[in-house]
Amino acid sequence: MTTSTSAQIGVTGLAVMGRNLARNFARNGYTVALHNRTAARTHALVEEFGEEGIFVPAETAKEFVEALERPRRLVVMVKAGEPTDAVIQEFAPLLEPGDMIIDGGNAHFADTRRRERELREQGIHFVGAGISGGEEGALHGPSIMPGGPSESYDSLGPMLERISAKAADGAPCVTHIGPDGAGHFVKMVHNGIEYADMQLIGEAYQLLRDVGGFTPAEIADIFRTWNTGRLDSYLIEITAEVLSHVDAATGRPFVDVVVDRAEQKGTGRWTVQIALDLGVPVSGIAEAVFARSLSGHAALRDASRELAGPTPTPLGREEAAAFADRVEQALYASKIVSYTQGFHEIAAGSEEYGWDIDLGAVASIWRGGCIIRAAFLDRIRAAYDARPDLPSLLSDATFAEEIAAAQDDWREVLVSATRKGVPTPGFAAALAYYDALRAPRLPAALTQGQRDFFGAHTYRRVDREGSFHTLWGGDRGEVEA
Amino acid sequence: MTTSTSAQIGVTGLAVMGRNLARNFARNGYTVALHNRTAARTHALVEEFGEEGIFVPAETAKEFVEALERPRRLVVMVKAGEPTDAVIQEFAPLLEPGDMIIDGGNAHFADTRRRERELREQGIHFVGAGISGGEEGALHGPSIMPGGPSESYDSLGPMLERISAKAADGAPCVTHIGPDGAGHFVKMVHNGIEYADMQLIGEAYQLLRDVGGFTPAEIADIFRTWNTGRLDSYLIEITAEVLSHVDAATGRPFVDVVVDRAEQKGTGRWTVQIALDLGVPVSGIAEAVFARSLSGHAALRDASRELAGPTPTPLGREEAAAFADRVEQALYASKIVSYTQGFHEIAAGSEEYGWDIDLGAVASIWRGGCIIRAAFLDRIRAAYDARPDLPSLLSDATFAEEIAAAQDDWREVLVSATRKGVPTPGFAAALAYYDALRAPRLPAALTQGQRDFFGAHTYRRVDREGSFHTLWGGDRGEVEA
Repeated sequence: MTTSTSAQIGVTGLAVMGRNLARNFARNGYTVALHNRTAARTHALVEEFGEEGIFVPAETAKEFVEALERPRRLVVMVKAGEPTDAVIQEFAPLLEPGDMIIDGGNAHFADTRRRERELREQGIHFVGAGISGGEEGALHGPSIMPGGPSESYDSLGPMLERISAKAADGAPCVTHIGPDGAGHFVKMVHNGIEYADMQLIGEAYQLLRDVGGFTPAEIADIFRTWNTGRLDSYLIEITAEVLSHVDAATGRPFVDVVVDRAEQKGTGRWTVQIALDLGVPVSGIAEAVFARSLSGHAALRDASRELAGPTPTPLGREEAAAFADRVEQALYASKIVSYTQGFHEIAAGSEEYGWDIDLGAVASIWRGGCIIRAAFLDRIRAAYDARPDLPSLLSDATFAEEIAAAQDDWREVLVSATRKGVPTPGFAAALAYYDALRAPRLPAALTQGQRDFFGAHTYRRVDREGSFHTLWGGDRGEVEA
Repeated sequence: MTTSTSAQIGVTGLAVMGRNLARNFARNGYTVALHNRTAARTHALVEEFGEEGIFVPAETAKEFVEALERPRRLVVMVKAGEPTDAVIQEFAPLLEPGDMIIDGGNAHFADTRRRERELREQGIHFVGAGISGGEEGALHGPSIMPGGPSESYDSLGPMLERISAKAADGAPCVTHIGPDGAGHFVKMVHNGIEYADMQLIGEAYQLLRDVGGFTPAEIADIFRTWNTGRLDSYLIEITAEVLSHVDAATGRPFVDVVVDRAEQKGTGRWTVQIALDLGVPVSGIAEAVFARSLSGHAALRDASRELAGPTPTPLGREEAAAFADRVEQALYASKIVSYTQGFHEIAAGSEEYGWDIDLGAVASIWRGGCIIRAAFLDRIRAAYDARPDLPSLLSDATFAEEIAAAQDDWREVLVSATRKGVPTPGFAAALAYYDALRAPRLPAALTQGQRDFFGAHTYRRVDREGSFHTLWGGDRGEVEA
């Protein structure tokens, strides 16, 4: 039904995400004002889903703003970038101090910081909120990562908690992440981790197929089994669904009729770019992004088909079963490393921008609704709750023990991949990161020596304070710089 | 000597790079106007090196500009970023149409594009020129990568050719790279490749040390031997120098008294960030940047020392010698991949910005003067000269054959590193890239299936045109999107 009752929340931008989010609010008993650049979409929503709750359709920006109770809560669900700025410019002049604009798109956190600052001058609260879970999540309960001024959460939080996903323990999958761009930053890293998770799953699949000799249907069963254990997660679950699907047109496994080219863009790429700015190694996420872009270079791949290399011959059935168990260990260990890198990036961002992000709370709200939801996150939450200043996830005793138990298999899986020519950039990057972290000495000492040689960049010594330079072109004496 | 003769070129910013470049011009017979924010540096240069040529010291910007013959050629050697803009703002109003500002710093190419555009409106030619070779190169002959308007090269080119390094065949190590930011872009990728080269050398060193059981002095000898073969290069040469150096204070190998923490910043990081924007996989360069940042996280490393893993036991002497030969193969193969990735990035940048960069010419001018100078580059030049539209370096028959011959050893070196717990992110990323490029099918097909499942992102089919979506939540029929 539609009515002119004043609305508790408004949604502008009624493409599928905005539409489903509006329906989610309405289904949870909120009166929802609706607005879209072209009014046809607004009316279509009311016509199709009007029975789900109370909607207040508005034809114009002015009507929309007037339909909202004060302080106004206005959710913007348009494309990131210029469209978001355009909508803000349209609505901001119509709002009053204390009103709230919530950007539910995948904005770059630097844009969110800028917008928050600009709107703050007008007294408007700007909440950059990452929303994960796709269309289904938006409708049935997403994971929500709102940033912005903490006072905005006082009135907005309870509403978001109602429409959000709930974890297995009933906790809502939303929390106030931190000031200004903190919410969109955390959503960005969420997506980067999602890239890494998907890449690792892809490598596991390829190994099971090419080395293990399993069919896609058999691999689906393996993933189903894994999904009952510590790898229990949405992505493992849908991997089994995708792999067991048979293409009706050809009778072939679905995965074999899909073009094997993915694209990288947006948040995955940003996660790596921002990590580079922050000086955080996120090699697993980077390899995932690169793997997608490599897959998309069709001409380059066509020109490279004849490059020499082994063609894997599948193992026998018994060996293959043992190999599958080892792949599970490798996947799990690599996944721990991905999350270690992702949480390191969040900690570094929090430090850089003064956000004071609660890492345990982040893990907690990713337990439901979002694409990377997993049983595993409950344990990450426990690790950070037990010790909020954990230097890294690998410093947690439980994870360290698990990775210790997994590492022989992890290494042997990589040995197989290396010898048999199956590309495993994600597994390999994860192991190299792990071995580098625990290395007593790194070749960075040689790097520093080289840099001092060709650029007089100086170095530090292990045995005393100060910066030093060797006169490489002279008598090779050492001077204090 | 100093005189008031009108100068053919001026240098402003007389820190070590600017000073040495000015001296290089003077030693080659050019009259060089000098300017610095604080005049003391200008006078110091004239006092110390006045005998090397004809210098025209200027106290003020106006004096400096007036000392130059027209069209003026003004080289800016200040820090990248705001200082460069400040100098341009100071000088631009004093210049006339046809005058030329040459920025010899490590500017971001996007800044160079902006500056070129702004100055073009005034009729001033802005030449963003990458200069590699450090202090020594600046003085004795650097590799120079000038971008900007091609007509600027008519009068500037001969001067740069005179002061530049010369390759073994006598060719000057400078060429007009392309319009606006092309020069700084190519310099950026040069530095990215330099990061990768240094990382790969570091991994080879660590393997020879921890797996081969060689001492730093023995490893220096191995590098010296390598330097007589296909790895012949400046970085291999100085690696031998650094590794054979003994610390006078302690009598220990120099490399063991240097703190093993490097930093990543500037051009190496940009190379990866821009590659991500361009969709070019540069995993080897990324791993090199990440390895530096990881090394610098002292607290994280301290907290990770107890992580479980193998401690390598060195091989016996005979095995070790054979292992060293395999490491050479692995290093060479990984190096081919690094350059493949770097040149791919240059080709992609050239395409994106319409620069029409001659990749063979780029390889040619890196043969002398710069940090990555190497015999190897002569062969890259030959590969691109023979076929300018080479899809990638790996498509060149000679490199493909070499990598084919190297790959068994390359794989076995990685097997050793994996089992013995020596971090080799660069070698591993290179091999994964190689194996991914030649893979008949990649798990990107599964990725696309997953994306279609959770986000209705659609996929393409191998057997017909169009975009498709499977109704995963419904009857799993397929619809054309």
